[in-house]
Amino acid sequence: MADNVTYDVESFYKGLVEHGLIVPVRVLGAFGRGAVFEDVLERFNGLVTQLSKNDGAEVYTFPPVIDRTIIEKTDYLDSFPNLAGTVFSFFGKDREAKALSAKVHAGEPWGDTQGITDVCLNPAACYPVYPCIAGTLPQNGRTITMTNWVYRHEPSPEPTRMQSFRVREFVRAGTPDMVVEWRDQWLQRGLELLTSLGLPAKSDVAADPFFGRAGKILADGQKAQKLKFEVLVPVISVEKPTAVCSFNYHQEHFGHVFGIRTADDQVAHTACLGFGLERVTMALFKTHGFDPKTWPAPVRSKLWP
Amino acid sequence: MADNVTYDVESFYKGLVEHGLIVPVRVLGAFGRGAVFEDVLERFNGLVTQLSKNDGAEVYTFPPVIDRTIIEKTDYLDSFPNLAGTVFSFFGKDREAKALSAKVHAGEPWGDTQGITDVCLNPAACYPVYPCIAGTLPQNGRTITMTNWVYRHEPSPEPTRMQSFRVREFVRAGTPDMVVEWRDQWLQRGLELLTSLGLPAKSDVAADPFFGRAGKILADGQKAQKLKFEVLVPVISVEKPTAVCSFNYHQEHFGHVFGIRTADDQVAHTACLGFGLERVTMALFKTHGFDPKTWPAPVRSKLWP
Repeated sequence: MADNVTYDVESFYKGLVEHGLIVPVRVLGAFGRGAVFEDVLERFNGLVTQLSKNDGAEVYTFPPVIDRTIIEKTDYLDSFPNLAGTVFSFFGKDREAKALSAKVHAGEPWGDTQGITDVCLNPAACYPVYPCIAGTLPQNGRTITMTNWVYRHEPSPEPTRMQSFRVREFVRAGTPDMVVEWRDQWLQRGLELLTSLGLPAKSDVAADPFFGRAGKILADGQKAQKLKFEVLVPVISVEKPTAVCSFNYHQEHFGHVFGIRTADDQVAHTACLGFGLERVTMALFKTHGFDPKTWPAPVRSKLWP
Repeated sequence: MADNVTYDVESFYKGLVEHGLIVPVRVLGAFGRGAVFEDVLERFNGLVTQLSKNDGAEVYTFPPVIDRTIIEKTDYLDSFPNLAGTVFSFFGKDREAKALSAKVHAGEPWGDTQGITDVCLNPAACYPVYPCIAGTLPQNGRTITMTNWVYRHEPSPEPTRMQSFRVREFVRAGTPDMVVEWRDQWLQRGLELLTSLGLPAKSDVAADPFFGRAGKILADGQKAQKLKFEVLVPVISVEKPTAVCSFNYHQEHFGHVFGIRTADDQVAHTACLGFGLERVTMALFKTHGFDPKTWPAPVRSKLWP
């Protein structure tokens, strides 16, 4: 990392835009991505694939919308009601359509013409997979990887805090030993991969942003039990580095909710880890500059071998 | 195409599931995609990139959620109110969160705890790009390509009718001549590409599924003016082949709404075309069988050179 890197939200956002890396839109946290940004993102995702190529992970892709009952059953709406996005649509006939149209053209609010659908936006890359692995796992458990779009309702001018972003996710389901050992292995792998790209990455115990007054107690418990780790890189601040990779050990939570059992007929434990692909990409631009052609040779040769 | 291909929704869906190509979920039209399915999809998308490599198209990626005012300004809610997906979220404090939680845990409807946000799901791959190209175009107009996730609220057991799917999209903005010539060139290209993959593709004049009683008049007008073409391949029916590629000439519509002007200071015309990536992939599985290893050699060597 160059010694003269300075940190502020505004100039970083402006730099991303001026170099065509992101394309601003009217709403916060939903900008377009340019070709160079996408190339870096895909190259990084390719390195993660390479790292995991001997793990026997099953590969899936899930759409950005998922079965709404998943967030109902998993207490997501208790912990993060403010971040959840639910999909509403119009269920009326001709007459109601006319009323909707009139409101839209008059510039009036029209939310009351909409009703809740069976889908919500995917709040965490791993969520759609748990119902799909219900039942008894094979002897060695299962490992699954996905690159999914994730939604969080937190509009922000801060470019690393997006409403919509991609996560390269891995999920492990099996016995507690399997799951914890796997998580620890990936914590090491993640740190090594990011460091090898010249990023000043550090890991730390972390907590989710649980909602409301009770949230602090939940966060403290999560920290005390070391259920969540993050790998952090300074992107918009040195004091508050950005989490680019997150590791969650759910213990029996999802196994219990979705009926996932180990080969020995115990409730399966699960853990997941995800690389925030846009955040890693931004960390690379922040650390090495807005033009990949000028990045250090070892970083370039890793991404574009 | 094998002569003995038969067509029915149920056995095609079952075949896709049994071969691990798609992963069923509880809601319709939101299934997961397996590794082999994704490989075919990405390979096909790569062929489209190759076809267009000398076109000087700018490449962007937009998230699955877009600025809600885009569907308000473009009359989307007049034409397809039933297909639009709007994103709602929770705006309350501790007390309202408790009420939401209580409803969810009691299995009661909780839609009334949600309010409309500034974003909606992207209803057509090209929509987010028009506000980004507002202003005066260069002399030769602009050509843009994107692979975006699109949402339509039409849950269906029919696998080619999805709530969420990807479209490889191209947009052209310029003078009427530029735009129509470009559209015609791509109609030819699309047919040739699909035919070269052994798909019995045919093009036809088409209409959008406009909503309600007035919808038929709009559709007839669109057909009479030949504003929409589709390329169709039999996937679940011979009589009603599936549109795998769609071409729309918007004339001045988006240019007018978003203030896109030609170099000669006229309202720009626009057209777009999109390959429905999941639909093309399914057409390949339907036509050549569920195991790509058994596909005809010319098709294999085109997809996996």
